[in-house]
Amino acid sequence: MDIKLYMEQVGQQARKASRAMARADSATRNRALTLIADAIVRDAALLRAANQLDLDAARANGLAPAMLDRLALSDSAIATMVEGLRQIVALSDPIGEISGLKFMPSGIQVGQMRVPLGVIGIIYESRPNVTVDAAGLCIKSGNATILRGGSEAINCNRALAKIVKEGLLGAGLPEDGVQVVDTTDRAAVGALITMPEYVDVIVPRGGKNLIARLIEEATVPMIKHLDGICHVYIDAKADLQKALDIAFNAKCHRYGTCNTMETLLVARAIAPQVLPQLAKLYAAKEVELRADPEAQALLAGYAHLAAATEEDWKTEYLAPILAVKIVADMDEAIEHINHYSSKHTEAIVTEDYTASLRFLREVDSASVMVNASTRFADGFEYGLGAEIGISNDKLHARGPVGLDGLTSLKYVVFGHGEVRK
Amino acid sequence: MDIKLYMEQVGQQARKASRAMARADSATRNRALTLIADAIVRDAALLRAANQLDLDAARANGLAPAMLDRLALSDSAIATMVEGLRQIVALSDPIGEISGLKFMPSGIQVGQMRVPLGVIGIIYESRPNVTVDAAGLCIKSGNATILRGGSEAINCNRALAKIVKEGLLGAGLPEDGVQVVDTTDRAAVGALITMPEYVDVIVPRGGKNLIARLIEEATVPMIKHLDGICHVYIDAKADLQKALDIAFNAKCHRYGTCNTMETLLVARAIAPQVLPQLAKLYAAKEVELRADPEAQALLAGYAHLAAATEEDWKTEYLAPILAVKIVADMDEAIEHINHYSSKHTEAIVTEDYTASLRFLREVDSASVMVNASTRFADGFEYGLGAEIGISNDKLHARGPVGLDGLTSLKYVVFGHGEVRK
Repeated sequence: MDIKLYMEQVGQQARKASRAMARADSATRNRALTLIADAIVRDAALLRAANQLDLDAARANGLAPAMLDRLALSDSAIATMVEGLRQIVALSDPIGEISGLKFMPSGIQVGQMRVPLGVIGIIYESRPNVTVDAAGLCIKSGNATILRGGSEAINCNRALAKIVKEGLLGAGLPEDGVQVVDTTDRAAVGALITMPEYVDVIVPRGGKNLIARLIEEATVPMIKHLDGICHVYIDAKADLQKALDIAFNAKCHRYGTCNTMETLLVARAIAPQVLPQLAKLYAAKEVELRADPEAQALLAGYAHLAAATEEDWKTEYLAPILAVKIVADMDEAIEHINHYSSKHTEAIVTEDYTASLRFLREVDSASVMVNASTRFADGFEYGLGAEIGISNDKLHARGPVGLDGLTSLKYVVFGHGEVRK
Repeated sequence: MDIKLYMEQVGQQARKASRAMARADSATRNRALTLIADAIVRDAALLRAANQLDLDAARANGLAPAMLDRLALSDSAIATMVEGLRQIVALSDPIGEISGLKFMPSGIQVGQMRVPLGVIGIIYESRPNVTVDAAGLCIKSGNATILRGGSEAINCNRALAKIVKEGLLGAGLPEDGVQVVDTTDRAAVGALITMPEYVDVIVPRGGKNLIARLIEEATVPMIKHLDGICHVYIDAKADLQKALDIAFNAKCHRYGTCNTMETLLVARAIAPQVLPQLAKLYAAKEVELRADPEAQALLAGYAHLAAATEEDWKTEYLAPILAVKIVADMDEAIEHINHYSSKHTEAIVTEDYTASLRFLREVDSASVMVNASTRFADGFEYGLGAEIGISNDKLHARGPVGLDGLTSLKYVVFGHGEVRK
């Protein structure tokens, strides 16, 4: 198999299908989604059998337990996929909306119409549920999609691809509206990210190493997600209870997520009150605290205490570990954040009106919060209805990316015969 | 001079200055713009003298007359620059606007705040007016800017840089808020487009060759503008007078602009009526018509007639030349456009309601128009107040790019102590 030639063909088919996908009305796209959801329910046993092949092979190859977990397609995972599709059907159609339509002095009326991006390439690890989630969002937003899942999930992805194609055809859409790359050869990824003539945007979902590699090689624009080095700053004017609740939740609700707090900054004036009480909460979860000298003094006697090094301010632990630093005031907090943060999500806890507005304005991250846990940085919690990923980029989509992130705004002009004078 | 080291320093200074620029309130940024406008008026003679040095050197180096034209800073060009700055002052501030603030089921309130992108690099040819236009738009939108103008304009750009820095300092802003790259070494461009740590976006303004080279090398995202191969399609149901007015204006209003029509598509049913009359209008301007065989037959006897080749459908003439093709219907027109267009601007002339809506929806270009000249695709005509360029990209800004294109939307969350359950 010539991978470059194969991917070229996949790209051409996607570009061609993208025109029909973009033209399709809401009802047709929703019909396809419903047919896919119904077929997943009908073929659940087949999907689980295909998944079992993948799991057996992965176990034989010694895949790590955490990876096996992600690869497994349990009954509840299948139910969640189906429920996800039905939720996408219920979302309002982003396509065709015209905003800001205004008359200009020349007499023309100018507005912006939301349209599909065209062809979206999704590159992800061995999580079969992403195949359905991503296909669903792309179908809803009128895009054609090329899906490249991790090689360990190839059997399950093939079975899902069959179901998706059936659903597209059943609704009268081209079957190439969604294509699953049918090879485990890694060269397919290299080809996919360097075909700007066929692919309008790449959405990588996966670990840091994958994305770092893609950044090096891609010529197609990406909506990309790097680390989440998220901060909570407890201001001198913080409400103590809110500070405890938020700092505990932001670290301990889930350790492995990108919106988990990795560094806690505490204003010097309130640190003696807040840190010892927080330590009691963290102690119950055996959270390791890596503290600067001043915080160390306030945390003396804490069982899992260590000295923070420069490296700690730059680390996404994804584990029950937290860097802790005392700062003089909000200015120092903002300076620290804008220097070390990965620009994902930061929160301030404060009752001070002016401090809250300044923090919102001056912190240069995709999500900036007042008196809320960083764990809220999420497409569902933000009311986007669904999420294709979280973007650390500033251009195009920033923060949680929903359906709108898979669209573009083109200018539309309603004229009456006007010409330029 | 070590160019890489110098550009690294420029980048660091820009990044640092960008924080103060982003924090500055509307009045401060407007004050800087007004001071710059006043100083240009005051120092007009100095600017003209610096420009004269550039012009003398350029003439001695045999620069083409068209380039000398662009390089020249006449009194009226100075007045236009000043007027442009005052218009930018009058625009409403894009920064800090919060949109879509809504309560979520969790109790948090989520919206999006418009914020500066950070550091914007502008690369342009030897047109000193761009130095002031671009600096003005970037100051207004709270960004720091690195300007790299064509080497022939270096003396004038240095004089303008001095005025801009003085204006920034006078308003209490950092003088590095706008930096003009003070070397004519081309390696400076290579450095500028590969410093993503210091530069958030590059806006290239200039010819196709410049931009093609930047695309090859850049690792910083670009808001880029390629060709304008714009189409007008005269539908079978077109109003004849509107068709004549628009097809004439779109070609002949100005030949050298990117929103000029380069290919005319005419529905077979109306071609025998419209083409001979159009030919009379074009004849007065000696427009060369490169027609397909069917159109040639209808244009028989036209003085400047030639046979269109495949190459003509792909060419941006920027000259009094027009490709002409007869199509069966709108479907064929849309197919031709989506295949050959540079996705800049296309217009349909029709009185057919359904055709107009379909054309708007299905043509995949940055601007799509009904019954209006393609020449309207312009930031001022669209009411953006100013324009930093026109984007052929689909991500981020598409079509004419105004102040909003120099900003990003970050999520802001107003909480009341909420945590994730």
